[in-house]
Amino acid sequence: MDREDITVGPKGVLAAVLTPMAGDLAPDHAAFAAHCHRLLAAGCHGLSVFGTTGEANSLSTGERLAAFEALLDGGVPAETLLPGTGSCALTDTVRLSRAALEAGAAGVLVLPPFYYKGVGDDGLFRFFAEVIERVGDDRLRLYLYHIPQMTGVDLGLPLISRLIDAYPGAIAGTKDSSGDMKRIATLCREFPDLSVLAGTETLLLETLRSGGAGCISATVNVTSRLARRVYDAHTAGRDGEAEALQERLSDLRGSIEAYPVIPALKALMAALTGDKAWRNLRPPLSAPDEEQTEDLLSSVPLAELL
Amino acid sequence: MDREDITVGPKGVLAAVLTPMAGDLAPDHAAFAAHCHRLLAAGCHGLSVFGTTGEANSLSTGERLAAFEALLDGGVPAETLLPGTGSCALTDTVRLSRAALEAGAAGVLVLPPFYYKGVGDDGLFRFFAEVIERVGDDRLRLYLYHIPQMTGVDLGLPLISRLIDAYPGAIAGTKDSSGDMKRIATLCREFPDLSVLAGTETLLLETLRSGGAGCISATVNVTSRLARRVYDAHTAGRDGEAEALQERLSDLRGSIEAYPVIPALKALMAALTGDKAWRNLRPPLSAPDEEQTEDLLSSVPLAELL
Repeated sequence: MDREDITVGPKGVLAAVLTPMAGDLAPDHAAFAAHCHRLLAAGCHGLSVFGTTGEANSLSTGERLAAFEALLDGGVPAETLLPGTGSCALTDTVRLSRAALEAGAAGVLVLPPFYYKGVGDDGLFRFFAEVIERVGDDRLRLYLYHIPQMTGVDLGLPLISRLIDAYPGAIAGTKDSSGDMKRIATLCREFPDLSVLAGTETLLLETLRSGGAGCISATVNVTSRLARRVYDAHTAGRDGEAEALQERLSDLRGSIEAYPVIPALKALMAALTGDKAWRNLRPPLSAPDEEQTEDLLSSVPLAELL
Repeated sequence: MDREDITVGPKGVLAAVLTPMAGDLAPDHAAFAAHCHRLLAAGCHGLSVFGTTGEANSLSTGERLAAFEALLDGGVPAETLLPGTGSCALTDTVRLSRAALEAGAAGVLVLPPFYYKGVGDDGLFRFFAEVIERVGDDRLRLYLYHIPQMTGVDLGLPLISRLIDAYPGAIAGTKDSSGDMKRIATLCREFPDLSVLAGTETLLLETLRSGGAGCISATVNVTSRLARRVYDAHTAGRDGEAEALQERLSDLRGSIEAYPVIPALKALMAALTGDKAWRNLRPPLSAPDEEQTEDLLSSVPLAELL
């Protein structure tokens, strides 16, 4: 990968990295580092580890910290990493964010606290404000993670605006998993200094054309090569090629999205690597049964993956 | 309180105990133990600490364990405690549940993992099964915590039935915060060995009459004396008195429920104790402003509380 891409911060094609688990459902550190290297080699500009796809909230804070350490020990460049540090507990998010910052990660991707519903913007503002104040380091680059279908919490534009006004340096970007291109375009227009990353590579080209920074996506675990080609064609101004590649990329994503995405991706990784342990998932997620797996493997063009 | 009530396990009137916080938003251990003693003296049969009302998911696992230890050190009888040990992370729930069990708690109240939505019963079953298997102790008494308005996850009757069939000793009861009396009555009828506790004292008498065990409620932090009188009148067969008291109790709860409940309860505790620190809440929860607080304090009959 291009070193220049690394130094500008999370931009381009980022995988929301899967977390491989051993038979006892503990993160498999060696397989995790190997997968990160595989994704960088396949063209990812960056790696958003410990997000929804990474089953991060199914891990304890200690397990997240240990797995993060293991990635660094395994030679994954810290500056390619945008780890999720969201948690319902302020103190956990502060601890995880500080560890990421001290290791030299590109930034941190932070969910709103997601247990309570209907809490109002004041409480959400105070959560992010407390995180920033408690981390207490000007180098912090916080990315707001909007995924209301999981959190049940809305990060509305007035809240984002208020946070940018209060912490213009620290609030660096957002991952928007709403799937709503209109909202993504509005974010790009209203907040020109915010790095806006779509939560799916289906919206990669459109997000880039709207002035966004790229995408962070679950399916990029297996579509990174093609996604990177879309990005490169776009930045080189080869518009027709970018569009044709985007169409292929969206079709590829569509073939995977027909199944519960995280279990499907782990089943695909098991097929691609020949390592059955890839199928392990922490509850409440479940692996597809044999019939569903066969169906998946026959409908997704494996040769086009990774 | 009656020692006999303690030994039969969680039954009767249980408070979903508030967690007092210091100025830095760390749990105030001394105030926490004092509040537990106050609630037991006011007639609570048991104490469900670390639930929704206790802001447990806003605390790290380490903070929860330390606060639990502090209650025991503060002389709160372990057998009165039904701590919440729910978390999105299997390993955290196992760790918290084992600590509760080893300390001699009456049981543990366990949320379904609440980050992922729409995961299906297999994954939820596997979560609870793994908790029970990993704790690996016949003394475990697990109470299923159903509160879909926060978790976004439904603990349906087929799942509960499957869990009881697989772990008849361990699945001891349920706290049902659906507010749906029809569901509560069905649970009592379909699962006669399950201790069914309503999530509000408004349904206390009706739940007892349906064969349920009692209630675990947020507002019992300030209504315990009156709630206990409802329970005692019912068990003594004084039906008319029980009904009249239940009506007063429901009115009292209603006057509080008109406000966001956890902030309102903390504001009431601040007024009742004269200790302003009671108003501290971890984000994303927020304290009411001065005007709202005055409104609350003027509309709730303070003299009837606790």
